Amino acid sequence: MAQLRSHISISLDGFTAGPSPSLDDPLGAGGEQLHEWALANAAWRAQHGREGGEVNASTAVLERATENVGAYVMGRNMFGGGSGPWAEGAERWDGWWGEEPPFHVPVFVLTHHAREPLELRGGTTFHFVTDGLEAALARAFEAADGKDVSVAGGAAAIRQCLAAGVLDELHLHVVPVLLGGGTRLLDGLASGPFGLEPVEAIHAPGVTHLTYRKA
Amino acid sequence: MAQLRSHISISLDGFTAGPSPSLDDPLGAGGEQLHEWALANAAWRAQHGREGGEVNASTAVLERATENVGAYVMGRNMFGGGSGPWAEGAERWDGWWGEEPPFHVPVFVLTHHAREPLELRGGTTFHFVTDGLEAALARAFEAADGKDVSVAGGAAAIRQCLAAGVLDELHLHVVPVLLGGGTRLLDGLASGPFGLEPVEAIHAPGVTHLTYRKA
Repeated sequence: MAQLRSHISISLDGFTAGPSPSLDDPLGAGGEQLHEWALANAAWRAQHGREGGEVNASTAVLERATENVGAYVMGRNMFGGGSGPWAEGAERWDGWWGEEPPFHVPVFVLTHHAREPLELRGGTTFHFVTDGLEAALARAFEAADGKDVSVAGGAAAIRQCLAAGVLDELHLHVVPVLLGGGTRLLDGLASGPFGLEPVEAIHAPGVTHLTYRKA
Repeated sequence: MAQLRSHISISLDGFTAGPSPSLDDPLGAGGEQLHEWALANAAWRAQHGREGGEVNASTAVLERATENVGAYVMGRNMFGGGSGPWAEGAERWDGWWGEEPPFHVPVFVLTHHAREPLELRGGTTFHFVTDGLEAALARAFEAADGKDVSVAGGAAAIRQCLAAGVLDELHLHVVPVLLGGGTRLLDGLASGPFGLEPVEAIHAPGVTHLTYRKA
């Protein structure tokens, strides 16, 4: 059965972005350190049309992250930032992702701003969903046509899925860095058992990959 | 060479104790969930003179935690709580640990209250060190006589060691529970690379064991 999955890099102190994110610095202060392990890896580079890169225990993890994904859901901040032209309602703002985004499948953006779908090169079409998470997931699973749906981020979108209990699998890529502030993935959720069980832990150079799955 | 190590259970949202710890509830609200994996395990039970228990991937982790430890260092809260009789200076308060504590080696307690050593059954003697972390570590390594020293906790003592850059190895036992508040292990440290590198990740039922070591 099609699963709802999410993969996100997180600092050892629990942040998925550093302090003071902005249009110029969407990952916040120090946030780029969370992604260095991926950007250096051959699998990420291949997924983004680049050559070379490291091959190590993270390679298979990155390959599995995009395997069998038929659609993505993401928050509006991840599409295009919470301030700046997009927040001002400018229809021309096409997000962070350039002319050929790395998704290659439909992407459903959670937003309050209705907008026509944005079709870009390489199979990525952004659809803007204004009627909430449940509607976005329904549309994404329909578009995925039996494949999985991945929640691309950011933290708020993943947290919303965790709060709703709809996530089947969460992959945390734990990076040995302290950000000391910023966006915490797991704040504001109900205390008690997490709801997903640990099922795998993979050590790789400079990052630890933890998988949690619905029991 | 003798190493300075520490082992601590931590919630997935980064807390080593829940909200509102007290003499009656030293682990804070929900904090006991962090230790269930250990208390159910045959290795922990054997270390505490009890029979039975589960044997799984956590068993070897628990056995290694006490292997080759010649002395412990702990914060005063872990010895006997931050309030109540001990804080009031009563010399009769002998901590949480009962007549035969599970340490079986000298334990050096970081405190502001000078006090005669407290010798209990089974080889545990608590020494009260009033001149700071460096002095406590020096005395502990001397007492350990070539073996390792383990920082037993709590979070403040471990954090002090991390801030001073003196910890060689940190073992985090990550429990899939959210406490939502309480004591965070990694707050208030300098942001940037953690200083210890991930070297091992072990999946076990209901807990993930992560090891970080000085590069």
